[in-house]
Amino acid sequence: MHYPTGVKVLKTNKINYANRGMNLEAELNDTNNYYLKNDIAVIYKKPTPITIHKVNYKSRNDAVIEDARFKIPSTTDYNGIYKGKYIDFEAKETTRNFFPLANIHMHQIEHLKNVYRHGAIAFLIVRFTKQNKTFLLPAESLFDFLKNNSRKSIPIIFFEENGYIIKDKYNPKIDYIEILDKVFFKEV
Amino acid sequence: MHYPTGVKVLKTNKINYANRGMNLEAELNDTNNYYLKNDIAVIYKKPTPITIHKVNYKSRNDAVIEDARFKIPSTTDYNGIYKGKYIDFEAKETTRNFFPLANIHMHQIEHLKNVYRHGAIAFLIVRFTKQNKTFLLPAESLFDFLKNNSRKSIPIIFFEENGYIIKDKYNPKIDYIEILDKVFFKEV
Repeated sequence: MHYPTGVKVLKTNKINYANRGMNLEAELNDTNNYYLKNDIAVIYKKPTPITIHKVNYKSRNDAVIEDARFKIPSTTDYNGIYKGKYIDFEAKETTRNFFPLANIHMHQIEHLKNVYRHGAIAFLIVRFTKQNKTFLLPAESLFDFLKNNSRKSIPIIFFEENGYIIKDKYNPKIDYIEILDKVFFKEV
Repeated sequence: MHYPTGVKVLKTNKINYANRGMNLEAELNDTNNYYLKNDIAVIYKKPTPITIHKVNYKSRNDAVIEDARFKIPSTTDYNGIYKGKYIDFEAKETTRNFFPLANIHMHQIEHLKNVYRHGAIAFLIVRFTKQNKTFLLPAESLFDFLKNNSRKSIPIIFFEENGYIIKDKYNPKIDYIEILDKVFFKEV
């Protein structure tokens, strides 16, 4: 769980992004920027959902949020459009050699099922930091795993067998659209 | 401009949603919920984008955002999927008999152009509160207007002539998908 459980107690006021996949997130933001600038796809990360309790309108141009809480997201973090298709995914990092399902909220899996049923290209991007491997796992494979297993984590071997390695590149860094082209836009 | 200019200075700490189209927003949220529950479409409002400056991790389960600012959004507020198509729109209310273009950020118009070019069904939903009329205006008509006019607002007559009235209903309240069916999913 990421918001708010699982957010480590820090002694400073700095935001602890360590648990929240910032490296992968930053690289995905760069990648999505690259897609946007090169007119390849329009895909954005959604803002972090919060509930605002108190705003101080210091001046006409300066509204300061002084009390707000993180909310559990109802959807995945990323969506957009590529080649006319609706794209939807969640991205996570893990330091283990398995992917703990607690890293995804039930709401998010439900959301992936919903958009998949309506025709989306839906998937996970999971980075195994120790192995330095980043996989794209189609939502369908995730659903299969959940249906056939009662385990609380998905072993890396499942990603090796059912997912697609996203190779490290310079630009874009996480070229997941290269995978989408191979898997979802195969020439007939 | 909505964040932060245009947010009225209040004497209380309550959030001033008056300028931010909360009535329409609340009705759209209800409508999108209805679509979701009835498995018609999966469309969400994106969270309000903010920049977080200070978080107080009071306890393991309680992270309080103590300093944050509103950010200018790079995209529209709403997107999702319907009948396999990527849907993208912005919703606004106006008390005038015209729609001030200052109510939409340039980024948002750029975003509508981007997703439209990639095959999205893109549009505005604009409510004229005094006239009690809510229109769906296809993005294409918006682009036409911007191309052929140097005016800083779109008169209601343009919506009457190029848009589609969304009739008031009990449930869903703002049944914009009924319009999408007529305009974008015509039987051939």
